[in-house]
Amino acid sequence: MKDSGTINIGIIGYGYWGTNLVRNFSAVPDCRVAMVSDLREERLQLINRVYPSIKTTKNVEELIKSPDIDAIVIATQVFTHYELGKMALEQGKHVLLEKPMTDSTAHSEELIDIADRSNKVLMVDHTFLYTGAVRKMKELVENHDLGKLNYFDSTRINLGLIQQDINVLWDLAPHDISILNHLISERPVSVQATGISHIHNGIENIAYLTVNYNNGFIAHFNCSWSSPVKIRMMLLGGDKKMVVFNDVNPGEKIKVYDTGFKIENDEDKRNLLFSYRSGDIYVPKIDESESLLNMAKDFIGAIKNGTKPVSDSDSGLWTVRILEASQKSIKNKGMEVLL
Amino acid sequence: MKDSGTINIGIIGYGYWGTNLVRNFSAVPDCRVAMVSDLREERLQLINRVYPSIKTTKNVEELIKSPDIDAIVIATQVFTHYELGKMALEQGKHVLLEKPMTDSTAHSEELIDIADRSNKVLMVDHTFLYTGAVRKMKELVENHDLGKLNYFDSTRINLGLIQQDINVLWDLAPHDISILNHLISERPVSVQATGISHIHNGIENIAYLTVNYNNGFIAHFNCSWSSPVKIRMMLLGGDKKMVVFNDVNPGEKIKVYDTGFKIENDEDKRNLLFSYRSGDIYVPKIDESESLLNMAKDFIGAIKNGTKPVSDSDSGLWTVRILEASQKSIKNKGMEVLL
Amino acid sequence: MKDSGTINIGIIGYGYWGTNLVRNFSAVPDCRVAMVSDLREERLQLINRVYPSIKTTKNVEELIKSPDIDAIVIATQVFTHYELGKMALEQGKHVLLEKPMTDSTAHSEELIDIADRSNKVLMVDHTFLYTGAVRKMKELVENHDLGKLNYFDSTRINLGLIQQDINVLWDLAPHDISILNHLISERPVSVQATGISHIHNGIENIAYLTVNYNNGFIAHFNCSWSSPVKIRMMLLGGDKKMVVFNDVNPGEKIKVYDTGFKIENDEDKRNLLFSYRSGDIYVPKIDESESLLNMAKDFIGAIKNGTKPVSDSDSGLWTVRILEASQKSIKNKGMEVLL
Amino acid sequence: MKDSGTINIGIIGYGYWGTNLVRNFSAVPDCRVAMVSDLREERLQLINRVYPSIKTTKNVEELIKSPDIDAIVIATQVFTHYELGKMALEQGKHVLLEKPMTDSTAHSEELIDIADRSNKVLMVDHTFLYTGAVRKMKELVENHDLGKLNYFDSTRINLGLIQQDINVLWDLAPHDISILNHLISERPVSVQATGISHIHNGIENIAYLTVNYNNGFIAHFNCSWSSPVKIRMMLLGGDKKMVVFNDVNPGEKIKVYDTGFKIENDEDKRNLLFSYRSGDIYVPKIDESESLLNMAKDFIGAIKNGTKPVSDSDSGLWTVRILEASQKSIKNKGMEVLL
Repeated sequence: MKDSGTINIGIIGYGYWGTNLVRNFSAVPDCRVAMVSDLREERLQLINRVYPSIKTTKNVEELIKSPDIDAIVIATQVFTHYELGKMALEQGKHVLLEKPMTDSTAHSEELIDIADRSNKVLMVDHTFLYTGAVRKMKELVENHDLGKLNYFDSTRINLGLIQQDINVLWDLAPHDISILNHLISERPVSVQATGISHIHNGIENIAYLTVNYNNGFIAHFNCSWSSPVKIRMMLLGGDKKMVVFNDVNPGEKIKVYDTGFKIENDEDKRNLLFSYRSGDIYVPKIDESESLLNMAKDFIGAIKNGTKPVSDSDSGLWTVRILEASQKSIKNKGMEVLL
Repeated sequence: MKDSGTINIGIIGYGYWGTNLVRNFSAVPDCRVAMVSDLREERLQLINRVYPSIKTTKNVEELIKSPDIDAIVIATQVFTHYELGKMALEQGKHVLLEKPMTDSTAHSEELIDIADRSNKVLMVDHTFLYTGAVRKMKELVENHDLGKLNYFDSTRINLGLIQQDINVLWDLAPHDISILNHLISERPVSVQATGISHIHNGIENIAYLTVNYNNGFIAHFNCSWSSPVKIRMMLLGGDKKMVVFNDVNPGEKIKVYDTGFKIENDEDKRNLLFSYRSGDIYVPKIDESESLLNMAKDFIGAIKNGTKPVSDSDSGLWTVRILEASQKSIKNKGMEVLL
Repeated sequence: MKDSGTINIGIIGYGYWGTNLVRNFSAVPDCRVAMVSDLREERLQLINRVYPSIKTTKNVEELIKSPDIDAIVIATQVFTHYELGKMALEQGKHVLLEKPMTDSTAHSEELIDIADRSNKVLMVDHTFLYTGAVRKMKELVENHDLGKLNYFDSTRINLGLIQQDINVLWDLAPHDISILNHLISERPVSVQATGISHIHNGIENIAYLTVNYNNGFIAHFNCSWSSPVKIRMMLLGGDKKMVVFNDVNPGEKIKVYDTGFKIENDEDKRNLLFSYRSGDIYVPKIDESESLLNMAKDFIGAIKNGTKPVSDSDSGLWTVRILEASQKSIKNKGMEVLL
Repeated sequence: MKDSGTINIGIIGYGYWGTNLVRNFSAVPDCRVAMVSDLREERLQLINRVYPSIKTTKNVEELIKSPDIDAIVIATQVFTHYELGKMALEQGKHVLLEKPMTDSTAHSEELIDIADRSNKVLMVDHTFLYTGAVRKMKELVENHDLGKLNYFDSTRINLGLIQQDINVLWDLAPHDISILNHLISERPVSVQATGISHIHNGIENIAYLTVNYNNGFIAHFNCSWSSPVKIRMMLLGGDKKMVVFNDVNPGEKIKVYDTGFKIENDEDKRNLLFSYRSGDIYVPKIDESESLLNMAKDFIGAIKNGTKPVSDSDSGLWTVRILEASQKSIKNKGMEVLL
């Protein structure tokens, strides 16, 4: 682990997200994007025009083995993460993987093992954990403002690009699952999932996931590439307060609701004598600084100072573990799959 | 079956919904609310003040056996529907049951059997089927405007009164399940459901339900009494158009989206070559006449003219069948339950 | 002024609002709706059916002169308010006038004079002053939460029924003007107004009004019967906080915004060195009890206990004074008209 | 006027908008950003880093007099537009001025005169005219879909940066006024305006403007830097249909409402026998391509091909004429000012 000096970054994959990574890592102090690799000639030409100082290559091994490079960011398709990550770690590089971490729990565990043995930083880019909204939710949970936590309910649906290698859960749910794992310290015990494919390749474009805990907490995820409306909403319910994170309501992304129980008139004699009571709503101002920049700084900080990143390899592993179990449950008609 | 004359109605249960029933049946031509029964003295006093011409009784048998009464509306708690409905049918009355029809498939089937044998109208009050919004959705489906139907996704969540005898699915989902059955002619083959109770009596306050079909169609329901926000949203997706029914957006309850697939640039070579394409949105004007009045007229019309009601006993039965299977699935950890 | 006993009310006019008045005054303790007059036979028949204990008459003088009646509510067209109100006061009755109070400042002042001399309650039904939303705004103003008040900006537009006798300002703006006068203790000094008629009778269906104060405060009103969207929004801006009252956003009618000034980077050297700063938003829970019932209670309380009503005759007078000046300004091409 | 070849552009002012101009003109075919001037050393350093091929200078005359430059874009403060524009035209350059065109009608007319005599393109950057939303509104007007046009009502309010040299009307209203002039072929005859300053320098931070026509059409503008909520809404009402342009509702920016009149029950005998009738709503898909790029292409096209630009100097002149008259009206207490 280096104590000082500039960290030289190599980035594998210059697609849509790769351009954001290059831009943000270029803005991190003590960090330099030294090389970018991509298989597509036109993408490399583009980077040469915009960032003439960055070396480019179509040969990913050239990048991984470059002695000038300290850390490698892997922004390629999921099925390549394990192989590229392993090679990079074995070359003594720190590694940042795009989400989801890898395509299986076993692969994620193996990468963690290699990173641990070689004392390298292994991190996963769950960008949402660095947003002002999620940081505010984390703060509310840590301050015990919500009371005993009861449920997490996430909807992430829109008209989307159909992926060829992964289903809608692997594509969209890593955001929400990583947030869940970030907010809830206890780990889940099982999942049930259902889904359907309306595409010839059999990949689910709609899926529903329930995640179970031992302590009366429940989480549910609704993911779809086939919704005409774009919904990005998360509810986190406690017995004192509840939070709504609505990512498509700028200026009011986080709302905190006072809730509780009150005694009702027992009109029908047979009803329970209580119902929910709603109260004031509080809409905290959210830090709007770019979350991807915060994530990049966290990676560089972990390399330089040995700090534990927010979106660490354990976060990546648990996300993959839940996704893998979900897929198994879908294939087994919603059967409960233990984690 | 009477051909003419006034239908005399008896209503059992004068709670919140009972007041709506009395008001609406009073407004139906050729119909008279003759008697109301309730166990609570103060409710009967209330009706005496407001509707002095309506007879009242605390003795439900007096109402059911009254020779002046042609048809009986049962607006009591679910567990009483079967017994009261059976008694009424056996007394030769037409019967309208509040939703859900009864507390079990077997009970619903038995009532249907009795009604068939005695040639009486047996109907269930799925009021939503009479709203302008659902009628517009039905029209879109029947005109084949949506193309091949792919999915139905319903969210019905709010802070609600905790029921003592039925869980959140039995309380809220009958609305959405009856709409599903009304819009989709094919019948489902199985369900999976999950849920949780945060209440001492173990009754689920949050539940999730997937309903499966043989033809690639899927339906999903998210029901909660524990959400700080009130959401009443249904999506019905076809391969040509999709409909959103947002019941809390007055003036824009129904939106019809042009959707389809388009070819995308294959930036990553490995993506499928298509994505969804969105187009114009159409917000049809919806008939705002009171749905409960339409329902009451449908009941009276069925009695007088022998017409088949929209919300018939088969609609009631299938709703109960799905609810019963859902509960079984929840108790069996999300196991698929065949219908 | 009576100290005890039941107040007998007579209501003149049984149109849309009249039905609400009868219902709410019937619910006030120590108050009885004794008689209702209307020129239309079918309206009187309706009241006979629903409220058989209420006397009805087509002869308004019979009602006004009835010795059994203590107080009279006048819910007829604006041009009749003065004459009927004067007659009622002269018969020794307490009087509640629907908004706007009368059709001219002179008429309003004369009624106030008569009421003062005869020691009778004269009140105007500005129902909005009794809503939870306006009461919350008043509380925020009185607690000095908003800082120095700077502006009031109201939009009340929708597709509406064209009135024959009054323009859109006289129809819609009384709500907003009475709220303005209720919240702001200082009185305005002048108005400017513009408007247009798209109707053959020359009555303005769209109008804009500015109300000026001596202390740097300004108020503006946008009223229209010709908007396809229904907007009911009021902004009240102070130098510390600002309030938005959005009447069509149930559950979030009142929002309180932290605002202030902050120093900006002076990129262009010539900009002022500050801009607004936004902060947290607070959405207080609003009392949802029926405002019309609260108004009715206030009237009865004023009669029985001599309390000063919230919506008193001075509130009515100032509303009419501003409306009258606005009309004069519209007719004089937006000329400033002093109050 | 050149027929072919690359147009070399010089841009004066590299503030917030200047960066957008450089980026978009760089993307126009047959166009090259050759030089940028700014008084601030750090801004020139920034451009050197990002666009090393663009020449930079602190000396605006060097840019204007450069023989390599064909056309000049002036993105400086309003009070400098006239002087810089005049110098550029006199050097034989085509000129694009940021909005508002100049600080007075006389200055705008003089520039137009010079451009006409020297046969150079003089254009004003009213970017909104190139948005998909405004183009859709224009199409609806030209197709006579709306019927006879009755009114235009615009609200543009938010918490904004206080300008030092121009008031809120000059800052915000050019967008809306240029859209009005673009949509309505007839020219207005007079204005009335009111406003207030809550800032020590006396510059209005809130202002209201009415624009009058001879044919029964009216336009109104509500502009504020002091609103806690951001509203960007325009209504255009015809007697057949009405359009709402809500710029902060992505995906539903333009809504077209079927409206008209219908006969109402004449409950009160004295009402007019008609009210508005609302019908279906249509939400057309809007072209989302960058409007600033379209504007830049229009400028280059006008230079190369002699086409008349959408946002021409007449559009700029009329916007300034209305602003100038508005300011005069504000200073004269809302007095009508003829155009």
